[in-house]
Amino acid sequence: MNRAAVRAAVHIAAVFAIYLSLAMLFPAAIDLYFGNPDWRVFAFSALFMGAFSLAVAMSTQGRPPQVTTRFAFFLVNLLWFTLAIAGAVPFVAASIDMSIADAFFESVSGITTTGSTVINGLDTAPPGLLLWRSLLTFMGGLGVIALGLFFLPYLNVGGVNYFKIESSDIEDRPFERFQTFTISMIAIYTGLVVTCAILYTAAGMNGFDAVNHAMSTLATGGMSTHDTSFVRYTDMPGILWTAIVFMFIGGLPFSILILFAVRGRLDALRDPQIRLFAGYCIVFTVAIAIYLRVHFDMPFFQALTQSAFNFVSIITTTGFASDDYATWGPFAVACIFVATFLGGCSGSTTGGIKAYRFLILFELLSNGLRRLIYPNSVQPVRYGDRTIDPDMQRAIVLFISSFLVIWAIGTILLGATGLDLITATTGALTAMTNVGPGLGPIIGPAGNFSSLPDSSKWILSFLMLLGRLEILAVLVLFTPAFWTR
Amino acid sequence: MNRAAVRAAVHIAAVFAIYLSLAMLFPAAIDLYFGNPDWRVFAFSALFMGAFSLAVAMSTQGRPPQVTTRFAFFLVNLLWFTLAIAGAVPFVAASIDMSIADAFFESVSGITTTGSTVINGLDTAPPGLLLWRSLLTFMGGLGVIALGLFFLPYLNVGGVNYFKIESSDIEDRPFERFQTFTISMIAIYTGLVVTCAILYTAAGMNGFDAVNHAMSTLATGGMSTHDTSFVRYTDMPGILWTAIVFMFIGGLPFSILILFAVRGRLDALRDPQIRLFAGYCIVFTVAIAIYLRVHFDMPFFQALTQSAFNFVSIITTTGFASDDYATWGPFAVACIFVATFLGGCSGSTTGGIKAYRFLILFELLSNGLRRLIYPNSVQPVRYGDRTIDPDMQRAIVLFISSFLVIWAIGTILLGATGLDLITATTGALTAMTNVGPGLGPIIGPAGNFSSLPDSSKWILSFLMLLGRLEILAVLVLFTPAFWTR
Repeated sequence: MNRAAVRAAVHIAAVFAIYLSLAMLFPAAIDLYFGNPDWRVFAFSALFMGAFSLAVAMSTQGRPPQVTTRFAFFLVNLLWFTLAIAGAVPFVAASIDMSIADAFFESVSGITTTGSTVINGLDTAPPGLLLWRSLLTFMGGLGVIALGLFFLPYLNVGGVNYFKIESSDIEDRPFERFQTFTISMIAIYTGLVVTCAILYTAAGMNGFDAVNHAMSTLATGGMSTHDTSFVRYTDMPGILWTAIVFMFIGGLPFSILILFAVRGRLDALRDPQIRLFAGYCIVFTVAIAIYLRVHFDMPFFQALTQSAFNFVSIITTTGFASDDYATWGPFAVACIFVATFLGGCSGSTTGGIKAYRFLILFELLSNGLRRLIYPNSVQPVRYGDRTIDPDMQRAIVLFISSFLVIWAIGTILLGATGLDLITATTGALTAMTNVGPGLGPIIGPAGNFSSLPDSSKWILSFLMLLGRLEILAVLVLFTPAFWTR
Repeated sequence: MNRAAVRAAVHIAAVFAIYLSLAMLFPAAIDLYFGNPDWRVFAFSALFMGAFSLAVAMSTQGRPPQVTTRFAFFLVNLLWFTLAIAGAVPFVAASIDMSIADAFFESVSGITTTGSTVINGLDTAPPGLLLWRSLLTFMGGLGVIALGLFFLPYLNVGGVNYFKIESSDIEDRPFERFQTFTISMIAIYTGLVVTCAILYTAAGMNGFDAVNHAMSTLATGGMSTHDTSFVRYTDMPGILWTAIVFMFIGGLPFSILILFAVRGRLDALRDPQIRLFAGYCIVFTVAIAIYLRVHFDMPFFQALTQSAFNFVSIITTTGFASDDYATWGPFAVACIFVATFLGGCSGSTTGGIKAYRFLILFELLSNGLRRLIYPNSVQPVRYGDRTIDPDMQRAIVLFISSFLVIWAIGTILLGATGLDLITATTGALTAMTNVGPGLGPIIGPAGNFSSLPDSSKWILSFLMLLGRLEILAVLVLFTPAFWTR
């Protein structure tokens, strides 16, 4: 990395921070509308962050940089880190008492679409603050879709590259396409949020909650305007099923929706990862619905709704809860624990290991076992009707292996801050997979992260960022090769 | 697999079962010596199993089979499964009340050198039964060393192949060498057990306990003759440090000891996995010793002894406990949890992921991260001064990835049998890594596996076998390619 590249990256990050500062005017407006004095917090933050970002952006202006792989990695890390810090400013200044660690945690949780919270008393919190959390999630979701569409596939880090499937049409006029795709991405994403909000309202949610929850649903974030998340809607299946459908949509590869909107074609639906993702949503839902029916004597439709809501929520790494599923008994809890690893599709807002990695892992495993028996057999590693090149194979197994190692280190570090084993293991896990709730009495679905020591919150914040940027894109920064000129 | 190959494998397994039946005469003798009526159990079992095995062996005699890779895999699986069943016979027949699941679990736990137990009241159990558990562990240890020396490296499954290092001397006269190595293997292993037993006795242990514990120490098994394992020796540092040294020796690659004995050379000690293995034994020991000193005001030498004993025990997958470390607080418990994954060196009796896999994983990760930045850079994957070929690279990452997947499945299955999350996750883990104790109130260091339902015991037994045979060597049997002619 040379100096010019760093300056260029800082410039771009500063421009994005200006946008973020402008977004702070929404919560300022809503607080003003509700007559809440906190509007000043947001107005002041917008002014402060806006002016500062503008100054940085202006002082770093210069020739556009040479776009190298290293530049792209550096930029992606810098962007998320900058937005996390900028997003934390209103929390520090807010009337609610939050430490620096709290504010950073909450901002990271939003921008990474994790949805864990350190705020107690959401139900009585200023509306601007609630909206800010949802907006961070909304923007984080948009950011991660852009990351999955435009960055990661080219960096060989994560993700099935849909554009390559459609190469004939796209590689001809890349910049024109880029624009079309960006506009349709924002339009479709916003359109889905609006549709979801309307359906929530129609199903009986109040307008403010509906808008906030809709942003959080499509971003598979999980930030709620209530301490108890969706528990208050337990008897409103319309709301729960709206959430289930839109969380599931949030777990689909976003490019499919774009391709549909731009071309009116649904070919990409044949993508094998969608079948696996839908498959384990259905299997877990049905298994636990039957289990709840039998063990808790719950009416079947209620059992199905509860099971579908909470499992789709965990698998899509949203993290809403419509019940304290920690009380559902050992089998359900073990399933929740395992579901926390899974994640949705590549190119979605979900985190976790993701369905396409499992598919390719199984393919590699079956190939590898075959080679143990027939050492000279050579078979291509297939994904649907494509062949997966060795670079991507390597990236996938390294992702999974380093996931395990980092999870172990995270668990030890959290243990060192005094967290019990369940809180430490599931806390590290839920942060790395951007799910939101963990298990155990403290950070389980009925709890939150407020009572943890600040040191734990810093560690968890780092793990959320690490998970959001697909681990390897962060680890790259820690190699000597990255920093040589 | 054709019929002749299956028959040949059954023949070899039957021959080994005859040896196992003969070994039952030792506990028969000791029970007779102590005037315990259980001698009849062992005499009867020896007779029954011996006659049956002899009949099978005779009826399956024939031409020696063609040794193919598939034959080797099939044989290894069949051997462990057969010996597990044969070893269970005396437990079923014993005066202690044990279900079939109990007996199989206990036998598998011995033969896989795991050391988990379902027996309550070991202190008052018949001496023959105690000796039988130790003997199973002893034979299991010998078996796994042979596996690591002669089978797995050639099957590309696990293990650094020391013979290839020394190829100039060895590949000339393989059969002669094979004999030399087998004899020195048995001699060194037995010699170490005898030395350990003598030192235990010198340090104050009674003779019977010393012999049993010595077998269990060198096999890194963890079977004890007392319900509370080594807690009764807490104030006898001579015993504890003897155990620490010999557990550590048990974690070394056995080929190093053979090479030393056969050639008087210690070159192989430069093996990088030994440095990593010693490294994490030391780091965990020192960190937790300081932690115990500070948090529990323990005298430093005592803290060091306790920390060294229990961490070396977990890292070498032995599973002895000299204290209820579950009460050492969150940091220590998180460290124990993570240490359960580690394992010792390739070619030792330890289980777990093992040090060489971590070394090669880190090398692959650093290579992979480099390639993300410089996609065209090609660097060999190095292990010490050797290059690791792609087949072994693949086997290692597939091992770690499938370890994670099978652990997840094991956790769900154990959850379905009603085990709480900590018991299910750490139970599946401790079984797969052949450590022994898990965490939590039931299967933690102060507990045992007796109160689990039979269904859990069957699952755990299977996981122990899976872990002992390095996972992939078992999974191979579940591929269609294995069974085509």
